[in-house]
Amino acid sequence: MSGSTFGNLFSITTWGESHGRGIGVVIDGCPAGIPLTEEYIQQELNRRKPGQSRFTTPRKENDLVEILSGVFEGKTTGTPISLMVRNEQQRSGDYSEIAGYYRPGHADYTYDVKYGFRDYRGGGRASGRETIGRVAAGAVAKKLLEGLGIKVLAYASSIADIQMESFDETEIENNPFRIPDSAAAEKIAALVNTCMAEHDSSGGIVECRITGVPAGLGDPVFEKLDANLAKAVMSIGAVKGVEIGDGFAAAKARGFANNDSFCMENGMISKKTNHAGGILGGISDGDTILLRAAFKPTPSILRTQQTVSKNGQEIDVQIRGRHDPLIVPRAVPVVEAMCALVLADALLSNMTARFDNIVKFYS
Amino acid sequence: MSGSTFGNLFSITTWGESHGRGIGVVIDGCPAGIPLTEEYIQQELNRRKPGQSRFTTPRKENDLVEILSGVFEGKTTGTPISLMVRNEQQRSGDYSEIAGYYRPGHADYTYDVKYGFRDYRGGGRASGRETIGRVAAGAVAKKLLEGLGIKVLAYASSIADIQMESFDETEIENNPFRIPDSAAAEKIAALVNTCMAEHDSSGGIVECRITGVPAGLGDPVFEKLDANLAKAVMSIGAVKGVEIGDGFAAAKARGFANNDSFCMENGMISKKTNHAGGILGGISDGDTILLRAAFKPTPSILRTQQTVSKNGQEIDVQIRGRHDPLIVPRAVPVVEAMCALVLADALLSNMTARFDNIVKFYS
Amino acid sequence: MSGSTFGNLFSITTWGESHGRGIGVVIDGCPAGIPLTEEYIQQELNRRKPGQSRFTTPRKENDLVEILSGVFEGKTTGTPISLMVRNEQQRSGDYSEIAGYYRPGHADYTYDVKYGFRDYRGGGRASGRETIGRVAAGAVAKKLLEGLGIKVLAYASSIADIQMESFDETEIENNPFRIPDSAAAEKIAALVNTCMAEHDSSGGIVECRITGVPAGLGDPVFEKLDANLAKAVMSIGAVKGVEIGDGFAAAKARGFANNDSFCMENGMISKKTNHAGGILGGISDGDTILLRAAFKPTPSILRTQQTVSKNGQEIDVQIRGRHDPLIVPRAVPVVEAMCALVLADALLSNMTARFDNIVKFYS
Amino acid sequence: MSGSTFGNLFSITTWGESHGRGIGVVIDGCPAGIPLTEEYIQQELNRRKPGQSRFTTPRKENDLVEILSGVFEGKTTGTPISLMVRNEQQRSGDYSEIAGYYRPGHADYTYDVKYGFRDYRGGGRASGRETIGRVAAGAVAKKLLEGLGIKVLAYASSIADIQMESFDETEIENNPFRIPDSAAAEKIAALVNTCMAEHDSSGGIVECRITGVPAGLGDPVFEKLDANLAKAVMSIGAVKGVEIGDGFAAAKARGFANNDSFCMENGMISKKTNHAGGILGGISDGDTILLRAAFKPTPSILRTQQTVSKNGQEIDVQIRGRHDPLIVPRAVPVVEAMCALVLADALLSNMTARFDNIVKFYS
Repeated sequence: MSGSTFGNLFSITTWGESHGRGIGVVIDGCPAGIPLTEEYIQQELNRRKPGQSRFTTPRKENDLVEILSGVFEGKTTGTPISLMVRNEQQRSGDYSEIAGYYRPGHADYTYDVKYGFRDYRGGGRASGRETIGRVAAGAVAKKLLEGLGIKVLAYASSIADIQMESFDETEIENNPFRIPDSAAAEKIAALVNTCMAEHDSSGGIVECRITGVPAGLGDPVFEKLDANLAKAVMSIGAVKGVEIGDGFAAAKARGFANNDSFCMENGMISKKTNHAGGILGGISDGDTILLRAAFKPTPSILRTQQTVSKNGQEIDVQIRGRHDPLIVPRAVPVVEAMCALVLADALLSNMTARFDNIVKFYS
Repeated sequence: MSGSTFGNLFSITTWGESHGRGIGVVIDGCPAGIPLTEEYIQQELNRRKPGQSRFTTPRKENDLVEILSGVFEGKTTGTPISLMVRNEQQRSGDYSEIAGYYRPGHADYTYDVKYGFRDYRGGGRASGRETIGRVAAGAVAKKLLEGLGIKVLAYASSIADIQMESFDETEIENNPFRIPDSAAAEKIAALVNTCMAEHDSSGGIVECRITGVPAGLGDPVFEKLDANLAKAVMSIGAVKGVEIGDGFAAAKARGFANNDSFCMENGMISKKTNHAGGILGGISDGDTILLRAAFKPTPSILRTQQTVSKNGQEIDVQIRGRHDPLIVPRAVPVVEAMCALVLADALLSNMTARFDNIVKFYS
Repeated sequence: MSGSTFGNLFSITTWGESHGRGIGVVIDGCPAGIPLTEEYIQQELNRRKPGQSRFTTPRKENDLVEILSGVFEGKTTGTPISLMVRNEQQRSGDYSEIAGYYRPGHADYTYDVKYGFRDYRGGGRASGRETIGRVAAGAVAKKLLEGLGIKVLAYASSIADIQMESFDETEIENNPFRIPDSAAAEKIAALVNTCMAEHDSSGGIVECRITGVPAGLGDPVFEKLDANLAKAVMSIGAVKGVEIGDGFAAAKARGFANNDSFCMENGMISKKTNHAGGILGGISDGDTILLRAAFKPTPSILRTQQTVSKNGQEIDVQIRGRHDPLIVPRAVPVVEAMCALVLADALLSNMTARFDNIVKFYS
Repeated sequence: MSGSTFGNLFSITTWGESHGRGIGVVIDGCPAGIPLTEEYIQQELNRRKPGQSRFTTPRKENDLVEILSGVFEGKTTGTPISLMVRNEQQRSGDYSEIAGYYRPGHADYTYDVKYGFRDYRGGGRASGRETIGRVAAGAVAKKLLEGLGIKVLAYASSIADIQMESFDETEIENNPFRIPDSAAAEKIAALVNTCMAEHDSSGGIVECRITGVPAGLGDPVFEKLDANLAKAVMSIGAVKGVEIGDGFAAAKARGFANNDSFCMENGMISKKTNHAGGILGGISDGDTILLRAAFKPTPSILRTQQTVSKNGQEIDVQIRGRHDPLIVPRAVPVVEAMCALVLADALLSNMTARFDNIVKFYS
């Protein structure tokens, strides 16, 4: 499978560069009969677009989505859904300069080594704009999940060393950082102001809670649900770490404390705790799936940095352009999208696990 | 792709249950002409087998590997390499009891929900013995990498809250914990003794350094090298977190500090630091690839635990059997194997990235 | 893998319905550095578009292609190439009637059963317009092959029972049937005139010769070159049979006569005959690859036919619209495209077959 | 996907060489809960083994199958099913001679070119023994199909130019040619006697009827049911052509005659004829699926043939060994197996086509 395709049954293929003609995605394997409109997808795209607050890049990108195929009379037809966003504002001039050197923390160098040259305008394929395809496809996956009572909710859980200390879901879309804790949001605003003044950027953590997941999703041994979530999230540019449930804290724990005891709850098998983060042996256990992704600070900063030119000269560079001091707020819908895609795929895959279900289906 | 297959070009399919007739793996896509013997693969398998020290399970498993196909006159032929280990000592009696309830921290419940029943003997397919196939296949991948000057080296970097404080590669196979720091090893021995006395277990972290990697490996955007490493490692049972380079620490960092400046070193483009862990934009940059995996404590402990039976009764159970108080030491070769498999696949994939190379190949 | 993706390394995903907003394809895995322009792709598309002669449908479809991504400064970048053709002339009114019944020989019924409903306008996804994506992607594959000296040449070898009796390559694009024999073309013109007068249609055979193919392409045992060619060609709507080399005639042959003796030719290993059609054991042998595809007659005919309505009434229908009395001439570039895609994929795959080549590549 | 894996959901990976330690297959994605025994699989294997009549090779191969994993308490568990047949009688001496030259009609030359060397003993991976894995896996697929009322029945429909003229299913296993027409069988016996006396071999056609198939199987546009059947069957060594329904005869037909009218039959939508062979637009229409495969004559014949040696000398060779004068009778179960595998995969894939079915499944 080539690099721009993700998923086995609910499968997406993204395309497009930052300053090319557009960005898009083709979704194949989406079941027929799901209601879908451009307005709905647009809402999700609007959550990732720049210019939502003074803490994100002031670039204006309307990013209007068009459904090119796969929907008829308001419903998915079971055939490929092609979604496209035309690129509009293209200050390619800002980037002509970077054609000649390698920006620290970016993929300029590695693309040049791999492919012999690169579309240097705005990072080309390695641009954050590539996530438009993910979010648009994720919106379709979320629609599928919604019909099954599954909800994927991501938010910032920390920026730099400021962590959320309370959880208020309604707060998430209320502050520019998408952190569910207004007090933390205020502290972060101060911190980001400092960052911006210093022409620097900051990292942070996105957390994702997936609720309403039936037990049984995920396939042993390599297509474990957590393995696919890890890949999905680590494939987002700037992510440097992923953890499920207690994650790295589990490495310091003892077995007796870390094991989640099973119990009965309303006549259903349940767990007293959820250190596992809703996944046992790679298969969902019916509990909330909990995941965290560590984002590095935006590599694009205005401060002078040292690097080398294409012809091997050590040089000092100051990268112009309008950049996010913080990628986390705009990454929140991207994490949701990637998690939704993994869940949609696992839901479809799980339908064929048992022969009795197959017999029932075909009789 | 079904759940027991991993890799696109250098592709493996594992099979086998803990107490079935055997465990094995089929490797497809391995290039022709690599020298391969059973003795070589056996050495790698011996590193993961139980009974290597008093800190691992005293179960005796010889785990002798047989090459069933794909090797002729001492070299790989390019056709599938089938490797098998017969299961020997099978105290299935130890497990008959667990047929009726769900062990906390194990996959018993999720397998039952998914498949309607399970091979409960020793965890069946969810047993740690499943990793035999990974290690055997990983040995072949390592042989391929070795011929290209690439070395994959894993070790324990911490157990519970005891971290390595120095790095001595020769120490790794010298202590029962595979930690490259003899002082840390002593502290860990004391800690594990306590654990064992309390019928408890401990988690830990495995770190992996991959050196000699050419720049250019990994495919944007979903088949990023780090995304595939994350999936590979997260697919190992008991892993709850993965990070690359600075990982979660990068979420607390500032951009200027986290960006690795490019520089010239012996006429080659290099980086002054390696916060990125050898991967930029999902593609290797020629630097050391650094990865860490968080392992939860072994869920199998002798202490009485609460759980539920298959028919929905809350019960207290004491799980018998001979278990590892610590999974990390035996997991070290498994992490190496999974990383080697990802690298082998990326090496093959990268050969077709540039048309000029293709023209050269066929002329 | 979902249904609209084809190929492993040189991989394409097509999308679009006959009367939706457009038709397109995303090519992933195309090597970087191949010169590519819209004009070049357009030439191939023009060969499949309707209205090329009075023997094809008089519908006017300009089918102008746009390269949306993956090409920079006139060369492929190694990232996904997105190609789109906007649908223009859409007499959906012609089709509203067929929403209520199932056209004989078409996929109306099977789509309705599978998906619960269908985009009935012009056949939706099952329309011949779907092949635009194939031809556009095939043009890119052909460009790759061209750089390696490989030529894919298809033509009609028979229409109804009129077969070509001589082979003149320059004649192929000279007559409306793309048959390399002007005498046969004249006979066919008379036959098709009769067909059209009787409101009927005719089948035919497309033959494809692929020359300049290096030995070694194709992977045993399921990814045999001939197996993939068979799938590629059989996936074209209206194809009911595929054969390689002597094909069905080989079923009547004796072994001694059918075996191709090896011989030396200009110091190279060659074959005295080519009953095998250039493939032995699923791997190319360096000889011309020869393939034939049987196309059924166009199912859309103006004559009154019997069928059933969606609500289960037996009815007589007369299908309006402007249809091809013969699909073969316009199918010629589609067969070429599918064969080129298979070859491109096999060429890339073969580069990783031998360890010595890998060592050479990375040193 | 590597060459020895077939199928997306019901996926198999075969391994093994003619004279290696054994031959086997791993089935992944087989649903849990299907009754399965070694005895059952053995029956299918016995149908393909040599020595069944004097018209097949007199080699003795017991080919006893062992289930190594994936079955517990007599039922499939949903995890990989590993099946192995140990190779027994290995007259490698017969083959040592062929190490130095290329047998006409065999894959010796193409393997050498591709891989640099080959396991020359008995054809290595290109041996007909490779089909053991197919038949064993196909037996499992057939068991799945059987539970859904689907029957896959193959037989010889012609040998050389002797065709079946009547169809008596009970006759198939009654004569050494597996042709459902005893009169034809007698004529064939005479013809094969002549062939054997002349140290020659003959080709033939295997036909396959699949009944009880629900409408809706197959995925547009590349994973069409007929496209996958074509690939499956063309991937069998010695197959040079495949056709569905009327096949190549459709190329000579007129549209009005070739279109199958829909009609009502017992309140169900049906077709008056079945020129289409049960597939419309790549999706099953509920009618009998009809397929034919053309097998070339066995290339291994005792007559002296011309060829070249590895070092480029033109030589005359007489290939020793015990060969089949006719591959068709033993290929019948192989065709059945490949068709069953495609159907099983399509059945699983089709379960996720409609959202309403998914909602029903999870509620």
